[in-house]
Amino acid sequence: MSEIPTFKQIQKAYLKIRDKVHRTAVLKSQKVNKRAGGELFFKCENFQKVGAFKFRGATHAVGELPEEKAQNGVATHSSGNHAQAVALAAKQRGIPAHIVMPENAPKVKVHAVRDYGADITFSKSTQEARESTLETVIDDTGAAFIHPYNDPNIIMGQGSAAIELLEDQPDLDIILGPVGGGGLISGTAIAASGFSPDTKVIGVEPEVANDAYLSFKTGERHPIQSTDTVADGLRTSLSELTFSCIQEHVDDIVTVSEHEIIDSMRFIWERMKIIIEPSSAVPAAAAFNDKVNIENRKVGIIISGGNMDLDTLPWQNFEN
Amino acid sequence: MSEIPTFKQIQKAYLKIRDKVHRTAVLKSQKVNKRAGGELFFKCENFQKVGAFKFRGATHAVGELPEEKAQNGVATHSSGNHAQAVALAAKQRGIPAHIVMPENAPKVKVHAVRDYGADITFSKSTQEARESTLETVIDDTGAAFIHPYNDPNIIMGQGSAAIELLEDQPDLDIILGPVGGGGLISGTAIAASGFSPDTKVIGVEPEVANDAYLSFKTGERHPIQSTDTVADGLRTSLSELTFSCIQEHVDDIVTVSEHEIIDSMRFIWERMKIIIEPSSAVPAAAAFNDKVNIENRKVGIIISGGNMDLDTLPWQNFEN
Repeated sequence: MSEIPTFKQIQKAYLKIRDKVHRTAVLKSQKVNKRAGGELFFKCENFQKVGAFKFRGATHAVGELPEEKAQNGVATHSSGNHAQAVALAAKQRGIPAHIVMPENAPKVKVHAVRDYGADITFSKSTQEARESTLETVIDDTGAAFIHPYNDPNIIMGQGSAAIELLEDQPDLDIILGPVGGGGLISGTAIAASGFSPDTKVIGVEPEVANDAYLSFKTGERHPIQSTDTVADGLRTSLSELTFSCIQEHVDDIVTVSEHEIIDSMRFIWERMKIIIEPSSAVPAAAAFNDKVNIENRKVGIIISGGNMDLDTLPWQNFEN
Repeated sequence: MSEIPTFKQIQKAYLKIRDKVHRTAVLKSQKVNKRAGGELFFKCENFQKVGAFKFRGATHAVGELPEEKAQNGVATHSSGNHAQAVALAAKQRGIPAHIVMPENAPKVKVHAVRDYGADITFSKSTQEARESTLETVIDDTGAAFIHPYNDPNIIMGQGSAAIELLEDQPDLDIILGPVGGGGLISGTAIAASGFSPDTKVIGVEPEVANDAYLSFKTGERHPIQSTDTVADGLRTSLSELTFSCIQEHVDDIVTVSEHEIIDSMRFIWERMKIIIEPSSAVPAAAAFNDKVNIENRKVGIIISGGNMDLDTLPWQNFEN
């Protein structure tokens, strides 16, 4: 198993990538604070390149490849933000990117990956098919696999968002972040532990994809086979590495319902006039629904991204 | 007829209101510039209080009322952003607001006005019914009528957005703004004429609500009786006052189609991750569709607001 990254490593990663990523805005809203009962600071990674924090980790991981390995390019399988992140990071380094995408991936995501110049291979949509197709691609090309979260270099890159947030707002009592595969919350918690040890870091997960919650509470990994949470970025389960990071550095994990996610997402669209994807509404939902005591506290919230299909909005399809 | 405001008056107005309004962000996007072929700077009044630039003018006009007149409160009729703007401006001054709203106004707008503590009177939705109901309200209360644009104090307040934009980005070649009743473009053009005389100010209008275009080209006002452009904030026609301001200070007026408005709105949502209402996409549509030559120019774009019904998005209903 890979080692848990240190705060020093996250600082170094940040220095390496900071000219390549956007320093995203930290936004506040009186109306949102009124509802939440605390003072919220939104770190807007929906404004990041490719529309998501994933570009931070991908930029770092792609950048760390030794030259002789990088020549053969990088590869991954993803239908989401990680695919675009790896594609753009590879383009910026000037090396090929090979992305395996499920054949039912939304066209808009396929176009975005292609726009960044990546080579796309389609597979059936099962996890097994995606993985075996990726293996074939790697065998054929010699490309280096960039895992979306089970990689210390990825975790270090993701931690840079929390460094910027704490630089802008050093006195946060709590940081809330979403938990999918665990890369973002791991990087966030390690960054906070070094930068601001009194700041508590709490992960938030959809109730119907609560593998991290169960793992954290029981001390044993509980991978989930499948889930259809509206927070499509959070359907994955923790890896051994991210689970170790979370056990060591995260203070708590709480869950929110599908209704709470959609309601919070819409509230932020309406009041803050920013587009956030469902996964990004998950930590805000914890703040709005008393899943964490934030009364009169200063709370950082990592908005993970803003990529979604604008043809169908979740509140238009969701019965609750 | 009221007199055309001067640049000095706009400067004074700005000094009076600047602690009461948000200094909104000016955003840029590489992807948007790539499509437009020029460098665009978006003045984000969707982040303004009440979600629209209208709060600037309302704050100034309500603030300018002499104390003895203000005691009886203010009144207006509006189903849109002006209603919320007057309601909040009155609340902040501590005087009553009486708002006449059509009985078919969206509930979300009614709630917003009520949340600001305004007194609402419903009328039938025709222009005549709204005006006669307003007259009754004014007779009953002695409130001062705050017109949405045919008022020099309103125009002065709206001009403050362009002052901030030009302070942040002094070397703009062009500013594009939407034209409805003409208050925003009038204030913008007067502000630019004093602050940055080389900056051209061009108004943009929906083709199907082109009264300002016709008036500007013929030298005579051409009010339009009714129109159903998707840009619901731009359905009104110029007043004598705003027409005079435009004749004197605006460099050109161009028009865009309904399809161009909706396409531009969606593009900005997708690429910039901000929520703008259809009226706000009108000037961007001119930039994206070569209605104005912006090649290699620096172009300011006033994003007028971000209030809309998130249950129905225009691209979900529009056949083109």
